[in-house]
Amino acid sequence: MTRRAALAAATAAAVPMSAGVASAAAPAAGRQAPGVYRYKIGSYEVTALTDGLVRRPLDAGFVRNAPIEKVREALSDAFLPPDKVPLSFTTLVVNTGGRLVLIDAGTGGMLAPTAGQLYENMAAAGIDPRAIDMVLVSHFHPDHIAGIRLKDGTLAFPNAEVVVPEAEWAFWMDEGQMSRAPQGMQAAFKMVRRVFEPMAKDVRRFEREAEPAPGIVAIPAYGHTPGHTAFRLTSEGEQLIVWSDTTNHPALFVRNPGWHAVFDMEPEQAEATRRHMLDMVATDRLWVAGYHFPFPAIGHVARTGSDFAFVPAMWNPVL
Amino acid sequence: MTRRAALAAATAAAVPMSAGVASAAAPAAGRQAPGVYRYKIGSYEVTALTDGLVRRPLDAGFVRNAPIEKVREALSDAFLPPDKVPLSFTTLVVNTGGRLVLIDAGTGGMLAPTAGQLYENMAAAGIDPRAIDMVLVSHFHPDHIAGIRLKDGTLAFPNAEVVVPEAEWAFWMDEGQMSRAPQGMQAAFKMVRRVFEPMAKDVRRFEREAEPAPGIVAIPAYGHTPGHTAFRLTSEGEQLIVWSDTTNHPALFVRNPGWHAVFDMEPEQAEATRRHMLDMVATDRLWVAGYHFPFPAIGHVARTGSDFAFVPAMWNPVL
Repeated sequence: MTRRAALAAATAAAVPMSAGVASAAAPAAGRQAPGVYRYKIGSYEVTALTDGLVRRPLDAGFVRNAPIEKVREALSDAFLPPDKVPLSFTTLVVNTGGRLVLIDAGTGGMLAPTAGQLYENMAAAGIDPRAIDMVLVSHFHPDHIAGIRLKDGTLAFPNAEVVVPEAEWAFWMDEGQMSRAPQGMQAAFKMVRRVFEPMAKDVRRFEREAEPAPGIVAIPAYGHTPGHTAFRLTSEGEQLIVWSDTTNHPALFVRNPGWHAVFDMEPEQAEATRRHMLDMVATDRLWVAGYHFPFPAIGHVARTGSDFAFVPAMWNPVL
Repeated sequence: MTRRAALAAATAAAVPMSAGVASAAAPAAGRQAPGVYRYKIGSYEVTALTDGLVRRPLDAGFVRNAPIEKVREALSDAFLPPDKVPLSFTTLVVNTGGRLVLIDAGTGGMLAPTAGQLYENMAAAGIDPRAIDMVLVSHFHPDHIAGIRLKDGTLAFPNAEVVVPEAEWAFWMDEGQMSRAPQGMQAAFKMVRRVFEPMAKDVRRFEREAEPAPGIVAIPAYGHTPGHTAFRLTSEGEQLIVWSDTTNHPALFVRNPGWHAVFDMEPEQAEATRRHMLDMVATDRLWVAGYHFPFPAIGHVARTGSDFAFVPAMWNPVL
């Protein structure tokens, strides 16, 4: 239902007050409000936009090296359903003052019916997709790149330069890697080709510690994928770590850095990266934006004894 | 800036892609997105709407019975500014299927320039103020009742029955109580009169454990004010505790139930109520909506050893 229709329906349902009796029946909205949240890092304005979520049934393989009972317990401790892992996706639009940079592009509505909300949330935020100057990609898993193209194959952000880690490009675009990859990974390789092949010559690739956009420096955070990259956004002395998939859901993997999610392609290296990054952001009390953190996906990491916990930012109604 | 203007500006700023160069400058939004969040409790749809916040400078009197250093430490542990307490206001609209019930009415823009957003957030949610059937009031502090009237004195929800705890009415409308109250409380007594006197004969007053609206039962939670009331919302076997001001900010008062906020009028009774309510919601793992919790102000209370902690709900992009 559009907002106009909802208002009209609500208005039609209003009745004059008669002492002690109220009988109007306004329709329920039946859907979530737009997932849009803004914050400042120095002079940069960041807009977090949710693309929705996938509720993945928990199976014994989801955490490779922990008993499923322990995973259920961690979900229950966080008041989440013990049999479903809610994997949500939060993309960022960074307005640097000179450029609009979209960091990761969501699922494009191609991975699950409960995801693909990026475009409508971007519209709700008042951002025209044609105004996006750059799509900056953390890694080539489908939930981060599929949304670069609409379902019909056209570019969702037609004026944007697409900027990717060289190490990701080298791995995923390699035909030998694709031919040696297990069956379960073929869809991911195909999505990489769907997205990038038609524009291969225009894709800009950046090296390990480059500054792919003004004030946004790459942090090699390899392991989740061979070239998985986080970013350090700096403006006027303030910093945000764009965490990408250094951890998946914080209730599981910030709480338990030693757990290996099924998505981690090189689990030992991913764990080493995770421990290093957790130590850094906790010690320096840095802002962290995690792609799979609950929307609006921004907060801090606290040390709790020998462990860690994610502390979501307090929603700020006034910028 | 309206959404239309923002879209137009963003569109105007879009430039054709030229390899490796992007120079568009879309304007920053400069303000927060609407604070609107929906959830279901059984068949009831709840819409949380923020009214904004007040950033109150921390002084030694804010927590009456704890050293200011301890309060600063608790704020810092929650990654909040150590010298300001962010007091936010989240009202609820409950759609029971038959009625639209607004629980508490915000500040009406009369208490601080950073609050008074309820009306615009209600519009963003597609809810016409004329469709509100009932305003249900937890207690008579100004940040809960001022918004019943607009600045010009007219009713903000002109078709709504106003429903209040009898114990609050008895205390605040009593001229003897007003004449004996200290200077610092006179403004609150005056606000009560501004809001209620012109409609006194139409206000419905309910007793301690009444059911003022269908499926919404009063829980006497006295102490914060003499008649301070929480509510138990039940639908199809699911429950929500509408916490009102049983605690103020959870980083301070869920973590430290023994702390007495300056706002608690009968501190010992407020503490007893707080401990009882915390024990109940933690033991029964109930949903809790707190008026001064960070937006969207919904979650659970976990027991952490002998203490408690608020666990915010994971934002659900798909109802």
